[in-house]
Amino acid sequence: MLNQNEKNAPVRVGIIGLGTVGQGFLRLLLKNQGLIRERLGFPLALGGVCEKNPETLKGLTLPPECVVYREWKEMVLDPRISLVVELVGGLEPARSILLEAMKAGKSVVTANKALLARHGEEIFGAAASHGVDLGFEASVGGGIPILRTLRESLAGDRILRLAGIINGTANYILTRMSREGLEFETVLSEAQRHGYAESDPTYDIDGIDSAHKIAILATMAFGSPVNLQEIPVEGIRQIKPIDLEFGREFGYVLKLLGIAVDHGDSLDIRVHPSFLPENSLLSEVDGVFNAIELSGQALGPLLLYGRGAGGDPTATAVMGDVMECARGVFHGARAQVPALGFPFSGRIRRPLRPISAIFSEYYLRFMAQDQPGTLSYLAGILGDRGISIESVIQKGRDRGGSVPVVVTTHRATESQIRDSLAIIDASHHVTEKTVVIRIEDVSMEGSLS
Amino acid sequence: MLNQNEKNAPVRVGIIGLGTVGQGFLRLLLKNQGLIRERLGFPLALGGVCEKNPETLKGLTLPPECVVYREWKEMVLDPRISLVVELVGGLEPARSILLEAMKAGKSVVTANKALLARHGEEIFGAAASHGVDLGFEASVGGGIPILRTLRESLAGDRILRLAGIINGTANYILTRMSREGLEFETVLSEAQRHGYAESDPTYDIDGIDSAHKIAILATMAFGSPVNLQEIPVEGIRQIKPIDLEFGREFGYVLKLLGIAVDHGDSLDIRVHPSFLPENSLLSEVDGVFNAIELSGQALGPLLLYGRGAGGDPTATAVMGDVMECARGVFHGARAQVPALGFPFSGRIRRPLRPISAIFSEYYLRFMAQDQPGTLSYLAGILGDRGISIESVIQKGRDRGGSVPVVVTTHRATESQIRDSLAIIDASHHVTEKTVVIRIEDVSMEGSLS
Repeated sequence: MLNQNEKNAPVRVGIIGLGTVGQGFLRLLLKNQGLIRERLGFPLALGGVCEKNPETLKGLTLPPECVVYREWKEMVLDPRISLVVELVGGLEPARSILLEAMKAGKSVVTANKALLARHGEEIFGAAASHGVDLGFEASVGGGIPILRTLRESLAGDRILRLAGIINGTANYILTRMSREGLEFETVLSEAQRHGYAESDPTYDIDGIDSAHKIAILATMAFGSPVNLQEIPVEGIRQIKPIDLEFGREFGYVLKLLGIAVDHGDSLDIRVHPSFLPENSLLSEVDGVFNAIELSGQALGPLLLYGRGAGGDPTATAVMGDVMECARGVFHGARAQVPALGFPFSGRIRRPLRPISAIFSEYYLRFMAQDQPGTLSYLAGILGDRGISIESVIQKGRDRGGSVPVVVTTHRATESQIRDSLAIIDASHHVTEKTVVIRIEDVSMEGSLS
Repeated sequence: MLNQNEKNAPVRVGIIGLGTVGQGFLRLLLKNQGLIRERLGFPLALGGVCEKNPETLKGLTLPPECVVYREWKEMVLDPRISLVVELVGGLEPARSILLEAMKAGKSVVTANKALLARHGEEIFGAAASHGVDLGFEASVGGGIPILRTLRESLAGDRILRLAGIINGTANYILTRMSREGLEFETVLSEAQRHGYAESDPTYDIDGIDSAHKIAILATMAFGSPVNLQEIPVEGIRQIKPIDLEFGREFGYVLKLLGIAVDHGDSLDIRVHPSFLPENSLLSEVDGVFNAIELSGQALGPLLLYGRGAGGDPTATAVMGDVMECARGVFHGARAQVPALGFPFSGRIRRPLRPISAIFSEYYLRFMAQDQPGTLSYLAGILGDRGISIESVIQKGRDRGGSVPVVVTTHRATESQIRDSLAIIDASHHVTEKTVVIRIEDVSMEGSLS
């Protein structure tokens, strides 16, 4: 249907949604047209745009051959357009745009992590059944080329483990809290004023955005569909400066991590704040930057670091995908690499481990009654449940009769910890609910060199 | 000629050279056969091996269908083999193997940086004219997927600058010298005893291996052929513990860097030891690890970190290329992405800047006569040539009447520095040739977050 395999006939790309990333992509496409043509060996033309907001459209200078569509359906059904870039975000109409475009035989590129994490089965299935390409590098880590790395560079190795700082807003907030000793709410409202955080920051600070991204990463790394609802998720709202301070005394830095571990029969996928050793590379990733670390069976450790958001960095990832899809269109050779790296039908769903079954080291901050015998009581309860203590800090502060007692443990299961805290928190020895933060063992082979 | 587009007909790969990487690749191919078949959608079979050393062959368990070729030419001309992996290393017969295999219509994969850096024009030209794929991810940074990132992920952006720690042996030696205050020769001979350095370490410690790699990286990033002989190269033989110590006092860590900067009309490509700010990510890359940092016009900074050598890590890069080439063979759709990212004929050669024309900050260690007026003399000569001093350390040690005076400068050209030192080193104010180490300004946009 799409016959563009004529020398110098351009592949026409249509963009739906001209927000930050859409405008970044448009800029890149127009600015680097010569470079892109040179690298592809054929021209990539802006065939059309579709954007709901008339104000946005007014501000743009579009090339004369670019069609402005009033409705996305018109673009998706226009045979002149062979490649649709969906940058609308959200679930609908983004889902319908992708499905209709693929049904019309067009390859698609998207940055929509929420959609892929929630409706991935439907969308990846449609790409497979229509024989089109589906690019989504921009959905995780902005301009960091992690998805192509998983899909192609490491295709012959087994990925054992992934851990990433994949939300810049949360990382920015934790970085400032940690550096300046500020409260969460203070940094958040300042970040909102400066545009580093959305007016509704829920997705970013409650870990939902990170869960979307780790679900996509795990699906590609392990070849198993992942049910988003089964991923244990904790955000950073409850983090207090005092815990960042104690963490530092133990040599730890706090990061919101997405974690995915292959246990063979089951997968351990989760999002939560984690203490990392201060000499680990991930602990050095500050501000709005993202980084993903992984461990391959043959490869060993690999870390990718860069800008995880922003119109221009994310646009480079969209462009990499668009150019790959355009090659498939031009050469009449689409869908040679399945979107997820594994053929859609060949994937095997493996169950997720419930959080109670995970192993970790733990940081526990008890607010203990300042009286003799309390430490012995706490240590006793932990010891009875097989939890071995690594170190303790007790300080003589007076916080209304209670003092912080901070304990780090050796590896234990989450259920051992929860059982212990159920007893401790119900006792008269503590005055508040105990704070629990997992300590991530990133001393995987070689990661600290 | 190679018609393998039948369902379940395997693509047959032949390996020439079963050294460390060859054996790593063989292990990976046999161990992950199921995973590889699943991801490709068709089988990848070990069609044959060729290895000069009969002892090596004896130690291997090969599948029954694998042909053991006595001569590489037999494999290269065997129509059952559609993909040749050259892991012989060195210039010949590696060059002939690649050229003959491509001439016979086979795609090829290699890890041979020396060959590509020296005979790249001939070899990339052959891939283009024969319409076959040429994979060489393993030639730079072992398992780090930097070449695919440049060729595909960042294909639509302009790369402004690259800097990398791309030789593990040199980095291991510098790391140990720096941590333990040891002399170069001491660490080198220990590294040789432990197998971290070759018995002839020239390529690694004199920067030649890094020059090969930066030439390949720059060729891909900037789309310009690079003449290896024009790259200014300095190694680490002359580095003294005292300079690492002084560097630390200024907040710097010493690394052997390959650097490539696009200045538009010319390219600045070089290899030399560089002081990096201790809070930069590259300065944290220790031991045998490699890392490559780049800056894209739209992307901003990106860093990739991992194992730069070793049979198993490097084998994952070979395998990623082999799987991509195998897809091209199976689907009858080869050479859709040019090996260098740019079409071979479309590249434009840009001149390299001579070292005298580069800008840098500098660390200068003078061994000064311990007498009044020396510092004023040194500062005067530098100032007269427009070099502005950033900071000075002078210490009262007595080294046969002379004391180290260490100066760091603001940005200056190399020729300003050389002119000044020609005068100073000929004067009676200093007792030894002045030590010059460039300070690399890695505070490119965002790289320090």
